[in-house]
Amino acid sequence: MDEPGFVAFLQRKFPFRFGLGIGDDASIVRRGRSFQLISTDLLLEDVHFRRADAPLDVLAEKALAVNVSDIAAMGGRPQYFYLDLGFPACLSTADLRRFFAGLARAGRRWGVELAGGDFSRADKLLIAVTIVGESARPLRRNGARPGDLLGITGATGGSALGLRLLLAGEKRSRFIRLHQRPSPQIAKGLVLSRFAHAMIDISDGLLLDLSRLLRASNAGAVIDYEAIPVTAGFRRDCRRLGLDEKELVLSGGEDYELLFTVSPRREKSLRRTGTGYHIIGRISRGRRLRVRENGRELPPGNLGFDHFAAAAGTGEKA
Amino acid sequence: MDEPGFVAFLQRKFPFRFGLGIGDDASIVRRGRSFQLISTDLLLEDVHFRRADAPLDVLAEKALAVNVSDIAAMGGRPQYFYLDLGFPACLSTADLRRFFAGLARAGRRWGVELAGGDFSRADKLLIAVTIVGESARPLRRNGARPGDLLGITGATGGSALGLRLLLAGEKRSRFIRLHQRPSPQIAKGLVLSRFAHAMIDISDGLLLDLSRLLRASNAGAVIDYEAIPVTAGFRRDCRRLGLDEKELVLSGGEDYELLFTVSPRREKSLRRTGTGYHIIGRISRGRRLRVRENGRELPPGNLGFDHFAAAAGTGEKA
Repeated sequence: MDEPGFVAFLQRKFPFRFGLGIGDDASIVRRGRSFQLISTDLLLEDVHFRRADAPLDVLAEKALAVNVSDIAAMGGRPQYFYLDLGFPACLSTADLRRFFAGLARAGRRWGVELAGGDFSRADKLLIAVTIVGESARPLRRNGARPGDLLGITGATGGSALGLRLLLAGEKRSRFIRLHQRPSPQIAKGLVLSRFAHAMIDISDGLLLDLSRLLRASNAGAVIDYEAIPVTAGFRRDCRRLGLDEKELVLSGGEDYELLFTVSPRREKSLRRTGTGYHIIGRISRGRRLRVRENGRELPPGNLGFDHFAAAAGTGEKA
Repeated sequence: MDEPGFVAFLQRKFPFRFGLGIGDDASIVRRGRSFQLISTDLLLEDVHFRRADAPLDVLAEKALAVNVSDIAAMGGRPQYFYLDLGFPACLSTADLRRFFAGLARAGRRWGVELAGGDFSRADKLLIAVTIVGESARPLRRNGARPGDLLGITGATGGSALGLRLLLAGEKRSRFIRLHQRPSPQIAKGLVLSRFAHAMIDISDGLLLDLSRLLRASNAGAVIDYEAIPVTAGFRRDCRRLGLDEKELVLSGGEDYELLFTVSPRREKSLRRTGTGYHIIGRISRGRRLRVRENGRELPPGNLGFDHFAAAAGTGEKA
């Protein structure tokens, strides 16, 4: 089963009468005048991360960041979370304390509190976080309309570049920091929830997450590559390591920026809020996703997209 | 760190301003006129179960049962849940469907719905469930008072006996069914929440879970062993396998019966509800936990309790 097939299978098999269940960044259940958002993410050693890539406090922080970003992607405010931790016996009590020190620091950073959990010995490190948030007006991924502008809150590819630098044995780079310590866009998500039609966070790459938004919205899109923010430092490191810049920008994952669509009229109001973002394209009719550079369409083979779409089967978020 | 030390460490490090966080079967947060209960449990292959011990649909059902029981233990009604699933690549799509068939069946059995999740490849099967429930009057484990009667909703030791039968290569026994398909006591929990002072579910053994209730309540207890329900069939199988009956009854885990304390006066009213339970002892002053048989105190060495207290470090529920 591919990811859309798996999600459709689950949606058929598990109807959810409390609200919106499987299929977005978080479930949505009405609670009085507000909505409760809940999302869960599983991070496994040697599947999603290598233990050697970052100290345990940094891994704890990142595990929480991934979940915080799911709430941000719905325009919500994260509140508290539950932790299932599988901890290898080879690690010490000092390691355990370091993990929880990172978790506490991350909780303070994003204003979320630990509410409960379960703990077990395990062969490899395993971090499953379930996060609870709220929103007066949750923003789903299915509301994009043809003619909407396509916006992004920041640069992409930096985290993927950081991972390649780590794999190449480098230690110090702002891209490694981006990879290890991503910043979920809570504040921007809250503002965007008042203006945007659809939103998703970029966890698995710009094109793959955009394709999820487009599928949910039954729409297509055209991206203007030259409108995507790419810094000179990023270009330089890509050249130095012999990496394909476009592939990292379009398909590198774990940036946790927000991708959203907004009508041209509402975008004028959004601009006046002072929120930082870039308009990188437009929503179109049909289901096609095209990338242009200075008006010329890039061949799909250049986008690294199919590769990542296939790889996504190893980490499906329902 | 032992379990109480670990829980105390987490409680110090992670204050929870939304309600009751770490330290009971579930967290408690007020939502309007009711309370929301949330609990999470991690089940790992070769730590908590062996894949050979039960088909995948039965394992899925049991994973949900464990969580449903946590809500029942607070006197709550389970509503919906989130699933983090790590699935070995050696299993097939048919296996995956079988897992979800069991999960759907279990959901119908207990009236709980799947609301979201995350999926990943993993070396071994990994099932982390986070469950949401509600209660008008959540019952904690810390309300036991000296003089309370100690009650239990059913027999203990059956699941542990079933596991021993499985390990001995047997296939058919009602104790094996008890082990594979436990029945969380939702209905009894709802009734008990109107009468009891304190409650906990028996996941890790009667004595260990009672000791948690006593520690939380700052109280002791005396159990009358002969008041605990033990069937002739249970005794016969214990003799046949050369097992210590008392150790299984007092310290065998995974029965998911409810253990509660109730004042003698309220117990009279509880009896009139027709709820099935057994009074097996009494709450006392001090912090001692004693087990008597026909008035004679059993030596602690007979109880299998210390052994399980030590083993509990591998599966700490916060």
